[in-house]
Amino acid sequence: MIATFSFIGGTEGAWRVRGMQAVAGAPLPFVEAIAIRQEGSLPAQTGYDGSAWTLRGVASHARYATADEMVRLRARQAPLGRTEARFAALIPIRKSSAWWSLAQDERRAIFEESSAHTAIGLDYLPAIARRLHHSRDLGEPFDFLTWFDYAPHDEPAFEKLVERLRGTPEWAYVDREVDIRLERET
Amino acid sequence: MIATFSFIGGTEGAWRVRGMQAVAGAPLPFVEAIAIRQEGSLPAQTGYDGSAWTLRGVASHARYATADEMVRLRARQAPLGRTEARFAALIPIRKSSAWWSLAQDERRAIFEESSAHTAIGLDYLPAIARRLHHSRDLGEPFDFLTWFDYAPHDEPAFEKLVERLRGTPEWAYVDREVDIRLERET
Repeated sequence: MIATFSFIGGTEGAWRVRGMQAVAGAPLPFVEAIAIRQEGSLPAQTGYDGSAWTLRGVASHARYATADEMVRLRARQAPLGRTEARFAALIPIRKSSAWWSLAQDERRAIFEESSAHTAIGLDYLPAIARRLHHSRDLGEPFDFLTWFDYAPHDEPAFEKLVERLRGTPEWAYVDREVDIRLERET
Repeated sequence: MIATFSFIGGTEGAWRVRGMQAVAGAPLPFVEAIAIRQEGSLPAQTGYDGSAWTLRGVASHARYATADEMVRLRARQAPLGRTEARFAALIPIRKSSAWWSLAQDERRAIFEESSAHTAIGLDYLPAIARRLHHSRDLGEPFDFLTWFDYAPHDEPAFEKLVERLRGTPEWAYVDREVDIRLERET
């Protein structure tokens, strides 16, 4: 089912920003905290008084995973929100028009057969939990909002995960990426 | 690139309704005319005073076609809006949750290897021009809005096209479909 999420950057929210880095393309304005709202249908593109930006995305169906890959992911993945998962990362990503003009089989081949995107992710399960939000059809500035949570002692593993993904052929099509690291307010 | 379209059912618009039929699931309220608006980013879900409904969708990238299929489609397809294409059809479609919980390879296999969706469509090019709008991520009541235009003398071919598609295994996953036939105001 469709679930729409808004990530609101500003001064309020359950997640305090530890750092923000523009990996590719334009940065986002720096904020102190991020609030996450889940909404049943498409929310207005508004935050709260004084918020700096709102990014929206939809958690919907998988776009590249095969049935076999989905079975392996489900067998190993952990849910978001575990007590020990006090660290998180919000990584908004935009891919180039060259990517989106490729056919489905060409994108799939780059995503998995060349870049092993799912296979790399599997190496970090269940330590790193993840939810992908699709933003492209919403006319948003990013195509995806990737959200991860993990225990603080798993941050080195998370660094390795993003480093491996950024070295793949798939990442040649990423033209904007911002890496935002967070810590849950206690 | 992303282009968002609103189809506004009511009493105004360039397209006069010749007939509306609920093929599966709940019907849409009958209207006299449909107005089409193209918007740069996501439009508000509003029509005009007195309009009955507004359906929104995004024309974006292909979700199942292979590179080879895209080459064959591009070689044969005609643009929308030809002078002789005075007839049109707007067919909003929703697929079941069973469809959306399938993996990409399973959906692709049903779409083309079992149902020959693209191959069937190719048989009616260039007579029938087409644009697909994606609505699912927008939280809309339908997943797709399919729009076709054609010359009046090609309506029998269009009937054959939709009859063939509705007989495919893919259509077992269609749980709502409304077939709206239109004529351009001259």
